[in-house]
Amino acid sequence: MGPKTAQRLALHILKRPESEVEDLAQALIEAKKQIGLCSVCFHLSSEPVCEICRNPNRDNSTICVVADSRDLIALEKTREYKGKYHVLGGVISPIDGIGPEQLTLQALVRRVSKDKPKEVILAISQSIEGETTTLYIGQLIKPFTKVTRIAFGLPVGGDLEYADEVTLARALEGRRELD
Amino acid sequence: MGPKTAQRLALHILKRPESEVEDLAQALIEAKKQIGLCSVCFHLSSEPVCEICRNPNRDNSTICVVADSRDLIALEKTREYKGKYHVLGGVISPIDGIGPEQLTLQALVRRVSKDKPKEVILAISQSIEGETTTLYIGQLIKPFTKVTRIAFGLPVGGDLEYADEVTLARALEGRRELD
Repeated sequence: MGPKTAQRLALHILKRPESEVEDLAQALIEAKKQIGLCSVCFHLSSEPVCEICRNPNRDNSTICVVADSRDLIALEKTREYKGKYHVLGGVISPIDGIGPEQLTLQALVRRVSKDKPKEVILAISQSIEGETTTLYIGQLIKPFTKVTRIAFGLPVGGDLEYADEVTLARALEGRRELD
Repeated sequence: MGPKTAQRLALHILKRPESEVEDLAQALIEAKKQIGLCSVCFHLSSEPVCEICRNPNRDNSTICVVADSRDLIALEKTREYKGKYHVLGGVISPIDGIGPEQLTLQALVRRVSKDKPKEVILAISQSIEGETTTLYIGQLIKPFTKVTRIAFGLPVGGDLEYADEVTLARALEGRRELD
């Protein structure tokens, strides 16, 4: 939680009756007690296995790998993706002391070698750490399945003129044949 | 020129000595007189054929199609592209009374059928008008050459969480195999 969200919370509770603040405090404790991580994909879940992993209508043949649950939620909002997920719990970042062993990579490799999905999509942002993580995972799981990564380029509706140079160069490099 | 730029210009000249403002006014008139459009690619140019079209080191086998000269300048700043350009002079927009015949499309078709480039890259933003224009040009020039379009997706360094849903959906849809 950043300073802005913290301030918003503080100002909110000061305006509210004490009983309501006590309810909120209780709800936070309950949430902390009840929400854990899904044992399959490591998404936040109140059950041992999360709703997405339990949903029989989700496509088992695709696993989308994301850095954290926030990214999973963002992808779910698009309503475009019908496969399963795998939440890494972060990205490789030596400067913050996060190596591959701090992430859920062993579980991912086990899952991929056992379930044999047709495709693993790496949906990790293109920062230096994200890039390192993407390449590292690629090496790990390429022996087992097809590995793809999400597209980088111009945002939809965005003007060329306002795109930063790196993004524009990437959009040019990543061009594809018109259908 | 939008209201902000106009205001900036107005405040600037009020602070300056009269002689300098007269010089600026004269320079504007000169610029207007001297700058026309390149007869090959329709980029702004003080010569009948622009510097890029005249440059023997630019690759003749690729033409990048952009809506206007601003987009061309943005692409040049990336220093990634070594081919030629074609400036449309806008995008197809029936609501603004701009049809295909208001753009430099005839000249493009002539150029493509005559020069036979290996590839034409459509670098047009993905608005409704941009999309229409991209598909229209695709139909026009596909008989002559390979037609590609720039990539749309997550901006480089951008977080999944902050991408709008359409862009994220597009990034997922446009995924490609990891090298």
